[in-house]
Amino acid sequence: MQLSLGQIAELVGGRVIGNPDLLMSGIGSLDDAVAGQITFLSNPKYSEKVATTKATAIILPPGANGFGKNVVETRNTYLAFAKILTYFTLRPKPSTGVMEGAFVSKDARLGTDVSVYPGAYIGEGVVIGDRTVIHPNVVIYNEVSIGEDVTLHSNVSIREGCRLGNRVIVHSGAVIGSDGFGFVPDGRRYFKIPQIGIVVIEDDVEIGANTTIDRAALDVTLIRRGVKLDNLVQIAHNCSIGEDTAIAAQTGIAGSSSLGNNVTVGGQAAVSGHIRIGDNIMIGGRSGVMHNMDQPGVFSGLPAVPHKDWLKSMAVYSKLPEMRKMIKEFEARIALLEKSSQ
Amino acid sequence: MQLSLGQIAELVGGRVIGNPDLLMSGIGSLDDAVAGQITFLSNPKYSEKVATTKATAIILPPGANGFGKNVVETRNTYLAFAKILTYFTLRPKPSTGVMEGAFVSKDARLGTDVSVYPGAYIGEGVVIGDRTVIHPNVVIYNEVSIGEDVTLHSNVSIREGCRLGNRVIVHSGAVIGSDGFGFVPDGRRYFKIPQIGIVVIEDDVEIGANTTIDRAALDVTLIRRGVKLDNLVQIAHNCSIGEDTAIAAQTGIAGSSSLGNNVTVGGQAAVSGHIRIGDNIMIGGRSGVMHNMDQPGVFSGLPAVPHKDWLKSMAVYSKLPEMRKMIKEFEARIALLEKSSQ
Amino acid sequence: MQLSLGQIAELVGGRVIGNPDLLMSGIGSLDDAVAGQITFLSNPKYSEKVATTKATAIILPPGANGFGKNVVETRNTYLAFAKILTYFTLRPKPSTGVMEGAFVSKDARLGTDVSVYPGAYIGEGVVIGDRTVIHPNVVIYNEVSIGEDVTLHSNVSIREGCRLGNRVIVHSGAVIGSDGFGFVPDGRRYFKIPQIGIVVIEDDVEIGANTTIDRAALDVTLIRRGVKLDNLVQIAHNCSIGEDTAIAAQTGIAGSSSLGNNVTVGGQAAVSGHIRIGDNIMIGGRSGVMHNMDQPGVFSGLPAVPHKDWLKSMAVYSKLPEMRKMIKEFEARIALLEKSSQ
Repeated sequence: MQLSLGQIAELVGGRVIGNPDLLMSGIGSLDDAVAGQITFLSNPKYSEKVATTKATAIILPPGANGFGKNVVETRNTYLAFAKILTYFTLRPKPSTGVMEGAFVSKDARLGTDVSVYPGAYIGEGVVIGDRTVIHPNVVIYNEVSIGEDVTLHSNVSIREGCRLGNRVIVHSGAVIGSDGFGFVPDGRRYFKIPQIGIVVIEDDVEIGANTTIDRAALDVTLIRRGVKLDNLVQIAHNCSIGEDTAIAAQTGIAGSSSLGNNVTVGGQAAVSGHIRIGDNIMIGGRSGVMHNMDQPGVFSGLPAVPHKDWLKSMAVYSKLPEMRKMIKEFEARIALLEKSSQ
Repeated sequence: MQLSLGQIAELVGGRVIGNPDLLMSGIGSLDDAVAGQITFLSNPKYSEKVATTKATAIILPPGANGFGKNVVETRNTYLAFAKILTYFTLRPKPSTGVMEGAFVSKDARLGTDVSVYPGAYIGEGVVIGDRTVIHPNVVIYNEVSIGEDVTLHSNVSIREGCRLGNRVIVHSGAVIGSDGFGFVPDGRRYFKIPQIGIVVIEDDVEIGANTTIDRAALDVTLIRRGVKLDNLVQIAHNCSIGEDTAIAAQTGIAGSSSLGNNVTVGGQAAVSGHIRIGDNIMIGGRSGVMHNMDQPGVFSGLPAVPHKDWLKSMAVYSKLPEMRKMIKEFEARIALLEKSSQ
Repeated sequence: MQLSLGQIAELVGGRVIGNPDLLMSGIGSLDDAVAGQITFLSNPKYSEKVATTKATAIILPPGANGFGKNVVETRNTYLAFAKILTYFTLRPKPSTGVMEGAFVSKDARLGTDVSVYPGAYIGEGVVIGDRTVIHPNVVIYNEVSIGEDVTLHSNVSIREGCRLGNRVIVHSGAVIGSDGFGFVPDGRRYFKIPQIGIVVIEDDVEIGANTTIDRAALDVTLIRRGVKLDNLVQIAHNCSIGEDTAIAAQTGIAGSSSLGNNVTVGGQAAVSGHIRIGDNIMIGGRSGVMHNMDQPGVFSGLPAVPHKDWLKSMAVYSKLPEMRKMIKEFEARIALLEKSSQ
């Protein structure tokens, strides 16, 4: 499979400087690309490598020196790389149909070209859209609905009644729709509050391996279009995660909190329960959000404060023993001065 | 299915003010309940809504204004809500028996009305109590014993020899009885210490999705009656978790530590190894317990200190750069004073 | 099954003081061992118990008082314990072969004495070495290669193309080779960067329950010989973990970071992306490494600093409110002194 420079320019929304009919067989880094491949420059500090790369053509941002090579010029060269790599590497496999060893309930409704691998379990009343792939040992409880072109990797669990949109990818071991952590004290014991809500996952969401998303107590835990969750993330019951929000690994969002659109959260961070975070906010790794946030910006620390302030406080932290010692000395020196000034 | 107000009063331990024969068809919130349903007031700040709710009857604490409506009076109205919701929503499903596609060893002993879904694996010598439900792709290794009315959700693993009591709920992907993290250095390499103990889980425990509980090195990792563990919690080998203790998501308890009864631990917290925590202690989210604790109270921070002290220290943290600047200035000003006083 | 003291001395690299022909039937602690068993002293503070233990023989370090008992003398008595315990407890089970209910692709190549339990799925082109055990509901995607004497516990997932060495142990629910968390912004949305690399796991690695290791974007996420990962650990794409490095539970290593050989990392710690950590470095629990490290030592805190410094800073943290109060008072007292000295 090959792409001409002209086709590449069309794919990435750029323009060819050179021969648009040259055929490329793949894409590689400046260092690793070989003859017949195209490469790309995304970090200006490597611009000298454009002269020496073995690639036959190169994707460059406007104004960069092409050293006389065939060029596809486009503004976001890294995005162009991702698109071309996708073209060269992702091949939709032919549908396997329902393989022997899979269990599909009689009243489940499967679209066309659905793949269901051995060991998968599809409960009663489940609806699955066209071209969706259900890998081995996935378990889909009753009354779940799943859209088109979805990929559920091995050992994923989707509990009863949950709904997934189109083009959702769920990585191995993730659990969607487990009971929220809801109990009410009954004397010294706990009484379980039934968790009868669901999880709704909109289109184009990707969910990491072994991530857990709890079903709502009564209504909906909502993961909006385009959300990207990394591995081992915890989303508690009744949360709402806004469109195109990305959350890195091992972060936890406590119950009933909502994140806006285009929020990014670093790894091992936390958001307390019943918190509202607005749009376009960045939360640093390991941060703990304990108060509502509505202004865009970058925040870090526990509690999360503007990132620059956190960096300053963190820098002082290692000076604390010295500061404490100085304060003790000041006490003595000031007392002495006070005595002599009497 | 309906309940009269008289039956509801009996169910929740309250008394009817009004017509005990009125039939209720469900329960909802003050805002969402409709005619024919009962609602409840748990937060006094919403007491005005009692006048306007569309619900036909209401659960109130003693002394609250019922605005002339039919009332069930009881002290813990939220507990009453949970009990009534449970009545209306939880329907034990008829047993499926052992379904085709499940693997049950010949010498496993299953009680009456047990459900075993396709893809479940039940090893040699396993004993399972009456009415227990084994969801698809659960794996139960050899010689495990499981009590009555237990629910094991999809993709749960129970390793060899572990014992679960009655009415235990284990959510999808949880692992019980994995090897403890035990190695002894042998030169620069590690030699694995066999982990030949087990995990014992007593009655009425609930374990969250993808939570892991390691088997003891030699004897028992113990999860006592009524413990509630949230998702992605780690319990290391040889730990003991006391009765009715609740641990929120992503918290880790290191090896050989013990927690008392009625302890609560927030999310992403940690307890170091070989620590003893007494009864009735609350540990805040993200806290790290590094020392034994025996007095009831609320503790937070790393290391965990009384919660109020932690709040004070945390409040000062953002003032650190300013404090450091002032200390530098003090040094100069005091030196000047000292010089002029000579 | 029994071992003579002579055989034990040979097994652990020690020497017998007493009767080398005495037969031992097991090993236990100083408190729990019974007649016919051997015990061991690893902590000098329990040396008095050597006199009173019921064990028939004892493993002692050179110079310790044997109280006239039969002794096996060796330097690392705890290692000796682990080796003897292994001898007495670990029995390789006879191979089960490929059991009914397992799915093995036609072109998969299995070595001799491989065990494949029901519900396991073995994809196309997979190669599995001799004596390897594949527990129930393990999923092995296409083109994976697995060495000899490997144990994959229940519900493990190994994604396409990954390679595992010999004697690797993977605990239940772990996911190896899930997609790295790689996206490039495309306007306000994210475009997924194909993750076409793999994970390579060398010999003698042990991986904890529900741990996740992401495949590289383009080349290899590398887990070197002898690495030990605890439960719920996250290893992001393109990381490299050095030989005999051990990482405790719930720790996360962000993308493209490398750890050297014989590194130890405590629980819930984190390493930022693109960080290089050298050999023989200890990182404390809950620490966050934000800068490269090349000198051996013990480091803790966020950011990680020498452990002793961190202990000092942490000790001062609780004094912060008092320090702030004193600083305010100093300001007033110094101002007064300055006024009176004019």
